[in-house]
Amino acid sequence: MSLVTFDVYRGSKSGQPIRQRVTRDLQPNEVFIRITHSGVCGTDEHWLHSEIALGHEGIGIIQQVGANVSSFKVDDRVGFGFIRQVCGVCDNCLSEWDQYCPHRRNYGAHDHDTGSFSTGAVCDAGCVFHIPAGYDSASAAPILCGGATVWTVLSQYNVRATDRVGVMGVGGLGHLAIKIAAAMGCHVVVLSSTESKREEAFRFGAKEFHVMRTGEPTQEGIEPLNHLLLCGSAKVDYDPLITLMAANGTIYPLTVDSSPSSIVLLRLIRKGAAIRGSNVASTKGIRKLLQFCARHDITPQIEQYPLNEDGIQTAMQALREGKVRYRAVLVAQ
Amino acid sequence: MSLVTFDVYRGSKSGQPIRQRVTRDLQPNEVFIRITHSGVCGTDEHWLHSEIALGHEGIGIIQQVGANVSSFKVDDRVGFGFIRQVCGVCDNCLSEWDQYCPHRRNYGAHDHDTGSFSTGAVCDAGCVFHIPAGYDSASAAPILCGGATVWTVLSQYNVRATDRVGVMGVGGLGHLAIKIAAAMGCHVVVLSSTESKREEAFRFGAKEFHVMRTGEPTQEGIEPLNHLLLCGSAKVDYDPLITLMAANGTIYPLTVDSSPSSIVLLRLIRKGAAIRGSNVASTKGIRKLLQFCARHDITPQIEQYPLNEDGIQTAMQALREGKVRYRAVLVAQ
Repeated sequence: MSLVTFDVYRGSKSGQPIRQRVTRDLQPNEVFIRITHSGVCGTDEHWLHSEIALGHEGIGIIQQVGANVSSFKVDDRVGFGFIRQVCGVCDNCLSEWDQYCPHRRNYGAHDHDTGSFSTGAVCDAGCVFHIPAGYDSASAAPILCGGATVWTVLSQYNVRATDRVGVMGVGGLGHLAIKIAAAMGCHVVVLSSTESKREEAFRFGAKEFHVMRTGEPTQEGIEPLNHLLLCGSAKVDYDPLITLMAANGTIYPLTVDSSPSSIVLLRLIRKGAAIRGSNVASTKGIRKLLQFCARHDITPQIEQYPLNEDGIQTAMQALREGKVRYRAVLVAQ
Repeated sequence: MSLVTFDVYRGSKSGQPIRQRVTRDLQPNEVFIRITHSGVCGTDEHWLHSEIALGHEGIGIIQQVGANVSSFKVDDRVGFGFIRQVCGVCDNCLSEWDQYCPHRRNYGAHDHDTGSFSTGAVCDAGCVFHIPAGYDSASAAPILCGGATVWTVLSQYNVRATDRVGVMGVGGLGHLAIKIAAAMGCHVVVLSSTESKREEAFRFGAKEFHVMRTGEPTQEGIEPLNHLLLCGSAKVDYDPLITLMAANGTIYPLTVDSSPSSIVLLRLIRKGAAIRGSNVASTKGIRKLLQFCARHDITPQIEQYPLNEDGIQTAMQALREGKVRYRAVLVAQ
């Protein structure tokens, strides 16, 4: 038996993150990582009032490996994301959809002691990623969930370099979607509720920018979109969005709440258009994404905070108020 | 100028079909068809109170061809469906999606004088189909819209022989979906509101049959479906249907009304599942479908009525009452 000890920041009833020591047994297939960086994601908010170890965009250095681990060694620089363990043998795992493995262990839902708001974390080696040499750790952190969420759409649903790819909402997910889709050679069309982000969107790689507010009619003259990633946090009105789509186009809501949406399916039928749910990327997907970002020098635009109680509170407050441009990263002091 | 004359049955204010003589000029790219058979489709109901020539599943014999027509000759046995003309040059036409050609002329919407409830019809040669030798005309008629509607899903969205394909609703569309998907080698899973259609579904090619009523909880133990074609006319509850889907699965509502549906998109996200609108097949699609049906001896189960006022009224009344097993075909006397 090999015990490892580290501190995690957990949620609490008051929503104040609490530092707590954890000691646990390192299983033969696990690695123990000293955390150097952690992204802060909107999803963390959901667990802030629970007793779960927070954070799921972790970067760090391997301190110890289990007896059966062959793909990592001590001192490797690695990351981990939303998924902590998959079965490896179900149909989903065998077909690059292991994020839907029915036996997976996810951040929050199944593991109260592993989070990236911490000094260390224990993860199944199968769900840990090598960080490409030369690619900054602070940049890599938000790739593991924010980047991975837009990557599923861009990599798995037949997006082509000749496609018109719409991105609605320039924020944590949206700015990464613009950068990645542009690097894939796509014509990126940004839909934003505010004129103020126009120049920035073009700098990220967009070729068109349209102001579009919920409840207002669709702008005339926008050429049809093959794909449309909904990256904003606001509830959207689907009718005008369906109007924007090309035949056989697809809309991907990436950040929706659990309340029902009202959708006129006949509009989808007339276009042959779809609304597809899409989750964070598969293990192989995230691996490819890290390589792609390193190769194309794609980095998130980040704000850094210290990885301690104050830093977590400040970062999450800024995120809550929509002030982060565009991802917050906690850095170990 | 070459004039052709024929009789059509139009809708009327009272909903009583009215026979009326039409004389029109045959354009260089058009063919004139003497109608021998016409399918009766639920969609015809929408035009019964308008003044439109009814019917969009026509089979007949070419009587005359325009000066520029090279693909048909007099006495050819042919069919035509929902789409009467496409532009042939837009992105949709050039990519096997000409059913979404923005310049298309459709049944009802753009042509008040061409219908298959008639003695004859004039169509653009580009949207007319050769009926394979040996394939019965009465069988071919319902393929042109009912069959073509399920065919878009089965041929265009990556349905594989190893997939589990769900068909909800054993009716005009559903029974054809079962037969075609079975002939494609798929494992067909039928969901029906009534136990009474079980044996028939198996005879059509289904391998599983589950009774599932709206408002009742989903049956346990149904293995995940890769595709699910909604072929019933009733409004469905999407929550339990999403539960049935495999990762990356897709639900296709084929017969919905224009009122909004309430859908919890978070459920789609957790599965990576989609809801895709899908319309009648493309021109090339219908051509391939006719060949596929002839090759596999797939025929709709039909009831025949005479192609006259009485026959139209009787067939449409039976359809309205849900009594047709499973497509009605009018036959010229």
